[in-house]
Amino acid sequence: MATRNAIHPHHNLPAAHRHRPPAATTAVHQNFTIGKNSHQKPSNKAIKLAESLSNMLNLHIETTIQRSLNRSTNLNVLSIEEKHNTPAKSPKEDISEKWREIHGSRDWEDLLDPIHPWLRREIVKYGEFAQATYDAFDFDAFSEYCGSCSYNRHKLFAKLGLTESGYKVTKYIYAMSHIDLPQWIEKSRFADTWSKDSNWMGFVAVSDDEESQRIGRRDIAVAWRGTVAPSEWYDNMQRKLEPIGQGDSKVEHGFLSIYTSKSDTTRYNKSSASEQVMLEVKRLINYYQNRSEQVSLTITGHSLGGALALLNAYEAAMNFPNLPISVVSFAAPRVGNIAFRDELYQMGVKTLRVTLKQDVVPRMPGIVFNESLQKFDDFTGTLEWVYTHVGVELKLDVRTSPYLKKGLNLVGFHMLETYLHLVDGFCSSGSCFRVDAKRDVALVNKDCDMLVDELRIPHNWYQLANKGLERNHHGRWVKPKRDPEDIPSPTVESHAGKVFDEMPERYGVGSLYGV
Amino acid sequence: MATRNAIHPHHNLPAAHRHRPPAATTAVHQNFTIGKNSHQKPSNKAIKLAESLSNMLNLHIETTIQRSLNRSTNLNVLSIEEKHNTPAKSPKEDISEKWREIHGSRDWEDLLDPIHPWLRREIVKYGEFAQATYDAFDFDAFSEYCGSCSYNRHKLFAKLGLTESGYKVTKYIYAMSHIDLPQWIEKSRFADTWSKDSNWMGFVAVSDDEESQRIGRRDIAVAWRGTVAPSEWYDNMQRKLEPIGQGDSKVEHGFLSIYTSKSDTTRYNKSSASEQVMLEVKRLINYYQNRSEQVSLTITGHSLGGALALLNAYEAAMNFPNLPISVVSFAAPRVGNIAFRDELYQMGVKTLRVTLKQDVVPRMPGIVFNESLQKFDDFTGTLEWVYTHVGVELKLDVRTSPYLKKGLNLVGFHMLETYLHLVDGFCSSGSCFRVDAKRDVALVNKDCDMLVDELRIPHNWYQLANKGLERNHHGRWVKPKRDPEDIPSPTVESHAGKVFDEMPERYGVGSLYGV
Repeated sequence: MATRNAIHPHHNLPAAHRHRPPAATTAVHQNFTIGKNSHQKPSNKAIKLAESLSNMLNLHIETTIQRSLNRSTNLNVLSIEEKHNTPAKSPKEDISEKWREIHGSRDWEDLLDPIHPWLRREIVKYGEFAQATYDAFDFDAFSEYCGSCSYNRHKLFAKLGLTESGYKVTKYIYAMSHIDLPQWIEKSRFADTWSKDSNWMGFVAVSDDEESQRIGRRDIAVAWRGTVAPSEWYDNMQRKLEPIGQGDSKVEHGFLSIYTSKSDTTRYNKSSASEQVMLEVKRLINYYQNRSEQVSLTITGHSLGGALALLNAYEAAMNFPNLPISVVSFAAPRVGNIAFRDELYQMGVKTLRVTLKQDVVPRMPGIVFNESLQKFDDFTGTLEWVYTHVGVELKLDVRTSPYLKKGLNLVGFHMLETYLHLVDGFCSSGSCFRVDAKRDVALVNKDCDMLVDELRIPHNWYQLANKGLERNHHGRWVKPKRDPEDIPSPTVESHAGKVFDEMPERYGVGSLYGV
Repeated sequence: MATRNAIHPHHNLPAAHRHRPPAATTAVHQNFTIGKNSHQKPSNKAIKLAESLSNMLNLHIETTIQRSLNRSTNLNVLSIEEKHNTPAKSPKEDISEKWREIHGSRDWEDLLDPIHPWLRREIVKYGEFAQATYDAFDFDAFSEYCGSCSYNRHKLFAKLGLTESGYKVTKYIYAMSHIDLPQWIEKSRFADTWSKDSNWMGFVAVSDDEESQRIGRRDIAVAWRGTVAPSEWYDNMQRKLEPIGQGDSKVEHGFLSIYTSKSDTTRYNKSSASEQVMLEVKRLINYYQNRSEQVSLTITGHSLGGALALLNAYEAAMNFPNLPISVVSFAAPRVGNIAFRDELYQMGVKTLRVTLKQDVVPRMPGIVFNESLQKFDDFTGTLEWVYTHVGVELKLDVRTSPYLKKGLNLVGFHMLETYLHLVDGFCSSGSCFRVDAKRDVALVNKDCDMLVDELRIPHNWYQLANKGLERNHHGRWVKPKRDPEDIPSPTVESHAGKVFDEMPERYGVGSLYGV
């Protein structure tokens, strides 16, 4: 049993440990970097042992989840019908005085447990940007635009009911991968597709004047899309670390490939996701700093998207040393090694990592080779090959919500909407679901079956009428052509080769969003 | 091999045999009724043998289907996009001069192979009534109206695009069963449901003046709904015959139970489906015969619905000896024994049985104990326990349509929309798909995955936007209340205890449909 406990990820650190200042943490871990050959890989024997431990662990996870969740729910707290006529969002307060702390300047010390309502509202705001990358994604393999965003960036928020977010989307990001990765890309079944190689992977947005006033600075937000099949992705993935930056930092090679791959033969990735996002962020920073505005960068993403957010933050911190940069990730797996984490800390990147106790993805990769292996140093050789998490954890628990089913549901436990629901209801660790939570509970079941039956919300309800087919005047069911303005176009989408300075006059104040 | 061939259902009878006059067929079969104890059941040994033969047969079906269908399709004939701007229905001709033959008075002799276009058009018309019973059915277990029709009868055809059918729905039929049958009923998960016991099972409609003129008589149409899980239904079903009528006729007890069950404790089946339909048919016959009109009855249904259609026809023939009665069934299983069939023939009921070579359901029940057992008389004892088909067969073949996938697809092969597509393209046995077929091909994929990928029609596309959830003005996703006029009501629906004569004055000419 000692063995099993030893490899258990440290999800239950007391608050004091969780908020330990980065420098201290780094020091502790460095004591364990005992290997001499820094590129030494774990031995075969170690891998074998690790694999069998991994299996045990998986088993352990499942049985404990099932045991602990098989309690019945108290449904008296449910009054969803009464809520139908109340606003579906918590109010936004003026946080301009306190924005740096909310943005993580003090590692969210004293803001997380109990959670500060302003912080909670901001986490939901960014989470909804990440959710938008799923909601607008064209998953239809029969569509020639499969893998793209269904709407152009000017319409995106309006189509998703996010017009009140206070942000405008300024750029879409596309990604490809040179490595053959399982299940990460969605492709049209047909040859005449908008892109054979790339997927829409997220967007850059910027706060408008009103929102900027409320939050005390001009905020550039980047949202990264994840994948729909997270467990297959992580299960099949080759867990291989590759160097990033100039030091000892290493990150998972699949994530890095998606972030950095490009090819001249593609339409949407003549520049990589990395180059696309950095160029746009740079353009916006220059633009607003020229106007003497305080600027911040907040990067968000769920699952794979959370991993990309961290790579993006690392690169942005390298390029913009004085910019306040935060990551708000949901259900993100481990991304890199301890040196990667330490470098992020040293550069001042703040990461708020929202996890769910019952979700297995945040334990991957590195479900075996992770930070807890310091107790296993006899067979790890070097911690350079050990994955570790970054930042401060906000840990949610399915059992706190009376609206959620408690049975094992690996898909439902991982869904971003489940996370957002639990963030909205979070007060403090150990306390009950917030009575005055306002977010629409029905959203949880968009793509899973997590809501208790009594709510009468169908599972997986997020779907188009007749999968997009419409009846024409002859009564024939046809797929309407996509609105031409929503058809992706490499010339419109790509800023490759352009920098802000070279842009025409119409890129003035009023037309910043109007490209 | 002789054994296996012997139990093969007679789907390949030459046309001459298929159109054999009923009387002759009866005589042939009677020669084989050699058992002395008419209630003797097959011996255990026989059942064992039959079971193993059944397994062999199932295996045989699957391998032969797969072998014969693995040919590639010639897709040059596909020009679905060109068809987008053409009418989706074949024109309706004036068939008044020939209506009796089209209605089967001469057992469709010389009308089926090659098929007469007028007959084909009528088969599609009735098939679309049967399809309407699926399309309007509320399958949502989270709906308190699960198991009902989503619309009231006045709106049904308009909602389904059948306004041009030329018929008006006059009555809905509800059914229950005292026998615990597998998978036949859809139920709400909640206690406060419109009905705990009954399902909407079909409707009675009548041709309007214009259509009546075109088809040469006032036609009463009855459409019966089938089930969604046909193979489970038929696989698990107790194959037990029960007496019907006064003679030796016996029918499958599950079908009979659905048709005849009633209970005073229910809201919708204080009278049985049988009583409901017969009362309404009687009312309409009286009404139109009083106006000296020629009246006919045409009963249709798919799968289980086809079985109910036959029971309904039997009862109607008993009650209205001189009424022209036809059944147009799709994918219907065997229903009764040879005496049942003979009695139907003697009463003049005409049955056009549309089957699909690749669909297994029409071979059930009686996949073993069927008419071909006459060659097995050494262990059957008596043919009174042997299921047999009724009427004239129109046999379709998936391989004739260039639009359909040819791989094994038990669900797709059984779907009514697949049948209607193949009827629309049918010319004659052995000939290709009709080039000028007009019915919308996309309909095939409503609830299955049968269309070749090149058509780019999503599979299982028939679905509500967001499963019926709608965003209210607060942005909350809620299930709108059903339109009050579409909520079933036993007082409105039930004619129980009323006869036509007692109905108020407003049941005059103009208000016949206006109850």
